[in-house]
Amino acid sequence: MKNIFIHEVGMRDGLQMEKSVVPKEKKLEWIDQLVSANVDIIQIGSFVNPQRMPQMADTDELFQEINQKYANTRHPIFSGLVLNEKGLERAINSGVQLICMGVSASETHSQKNTGTSDALQRIIAMAHQAKSAGFAVQVSVQSAFGCGFEGRVSKERVLSIIDKYLENDLFKISLADTAGHAFPQQVEDLFGEIVKRTDKAELTCHFHNTYGLGMANIYAAMQMGVEYFETAFGGLGGCPFTKIASGNVATEDFLHYLHRLNMRKDILLPQIVDLARQVSDFFGKTLPGCVYQAGILNY
Amino acid sequence: MKNIFIHEVGMRDGLQMEKSVVPKEKKLEWIDQLVSANVDIIQIGSFVNPQRMPQMADTDELFQEINQKYANTRHPIFSGLVLNEKGLERAINSGVQLICMGVSASETHSQKNTGTSDALQRIIAMAHQAKSAGFAVQVSVQSAFGCGFEGRVSKERVLSIIDKYLENDLFKISLADTAGHAFPQQVEDLFGEIVKRTDKAELTCHFHNTYGLGMANIYAAMQMGVEYFETAFGGLGGCPFTKIASGNVATEDFLHYLHRLNMRKDILLPQIVDLARQVSDFFGKTLPGCVYQAGILNY
Repeated sequence: MKNIFIHEVGMRDGLQMEKSVVPKEKKLEWIDQLVSANVDIIQIGSFVNPQRMPQMADTDELFQEINQKYANTRHPIFSGLVLNEKGLERAINSGVQLICMGVSASETHSQKNTGTSDALQRIIAMAHQAKSAGFAVQVSVQSAFGCGFEGRVSKERVLSIIDKYLENDLFKISLADTAGHAFPQQVEDLFGEIVKRTDKAELTCHFHNTYGLGMANIYAAMQMGVEYFETAFGGLGGCPFTKIASGNVATEDFLHYLHRLNMRKDILLPQIVDLARQVSDFFGKTLPGCVYQAGILNY
Repeated sequence: MKNIFIHEVGMRDGLQMEKSVVPKEKKLEWIDQLVSANVDIIQIGSFVNPQRMPQMADTDELFQEINQKYANTRHPIFSGLVLNEKGLERAINSGVQLICMGVSASETHSQKNTGTSDALQRIIAMAHQAKSAGFAVQVSVQSAFGCGFEGRVSKERVLSIIDKYLENDLFKISLADTAGHAFPQQVEDLFGEIVKRTDKAELTCHFHNTYGLGMANIYAAMQMGVEYFETAFGGLGGCPFTKIASGNVATEDFLHYLHRLNMRKDILLPQIVDLARQVSDFFGKTLPGCVYQAGILNY
């Protein structure tokens, strides 16, 4: 098995789904905790319309603060999500280290998410712009395994988007199961197709646990050589523009599993478990994650 | 992939963990619903000391009623769990169609569960007795993947128990992850060892979701050719004699997954989802299952 890297998306995918807006100071505390836990990549937020998503209104300021704070110390990669050209401009101005962007394989989801239908051309142009400006870029296919509105998403459609990415030398590719429809055999099949096409891709997966298969899908992705895993502390998360949204696989559950495999012991599980507990207290509810409730197995 | 059979253990493993005792009439309703859903095997209860576990006090009566009720109609296999000779006698008198019994691979768990230390010899003698009396027998290894008290359980110890079962022509073998410590690679490894030893075994798995890996373990077991899956409606369950107990994989989540694979469409998912909702209402709490909360994907 290849090495495994954790891309923590709780600050973005997690917090965007919560009604309460987390104050910037609290976000900075949580980011500090993730930094000290030594996760590989932390997604700080998205550069979206603050009217449309007030939970993410402070993303530019957060980047300003953390870029200053961590300027002279070793730290994880800080990533940010952009949906359109305006967001990209903000991300570039904010000094985001990894700019994430993507299109939905589902036309309905794409329309609701970005309000446009020429999404792929635009994203590719944006990716080139970001790369030319010296930024690392991750491109994704959302709703890659099914859509809350449309149901089945054709594999051919997903692969045609991936082919476009590859033709454009965009190799950091994420397949996101926005609605949680994926199942392990499908995960193996789809990632298998990419692996057949190229050995240059840096593959990322992103699974929601709507129907209970999130971790099984992660396991299937690991079998296919996927190296980057987007997960969220506490199992928070969900896309506000899909139909039935449900949380991501919990970072601490995934890390707990990796530790059972004797992998990534350099990422500190107790820190993330503790964060999940704090976040649970903050929102005043039990989160979907298992390990923060059961405790850590230490053998 | 081989065929897949569902052994519904919610009536036993699920209800034994709940503080409220479910009245017999309610249990009969729920069993009826499982019968009409067409699951393969329904575990009705355990033959244990009613003082020690009042939730299971009516197991003999339940068998009397359902054996009468379903005497002349096609129905699933009704199974029951026994822990000792006294329970076996009751199971035989109750006309149980599949008698389940087992030992724990963990000495501490075994002591707490059965109060004895010569468990293996006794279980093998009991299995022979039941088979001689014409009953089908499933033998299990509990805590096969780790123990809430002892932590690591040696693979050699588990395999030595399995070898004893095989030597004694006991081929219906279940590996139970009582504490939820299993992870997929371990599942593949352990079932792989059995498959290497014999092609006569009818393998069953039983996973608790304590650390979020239940469904991933099921997927791993499917890959190894395991055919029988013990799951519980709503994701109820847990062993009262282990340390941190947590629910089983939810039957409806597993079946939903099978339906995504176009398998076992003859088992009726809406019936089980409806049962999970009723059980959730009965106990007045949200259960761990995902699909009964999210609804069914119908494509």
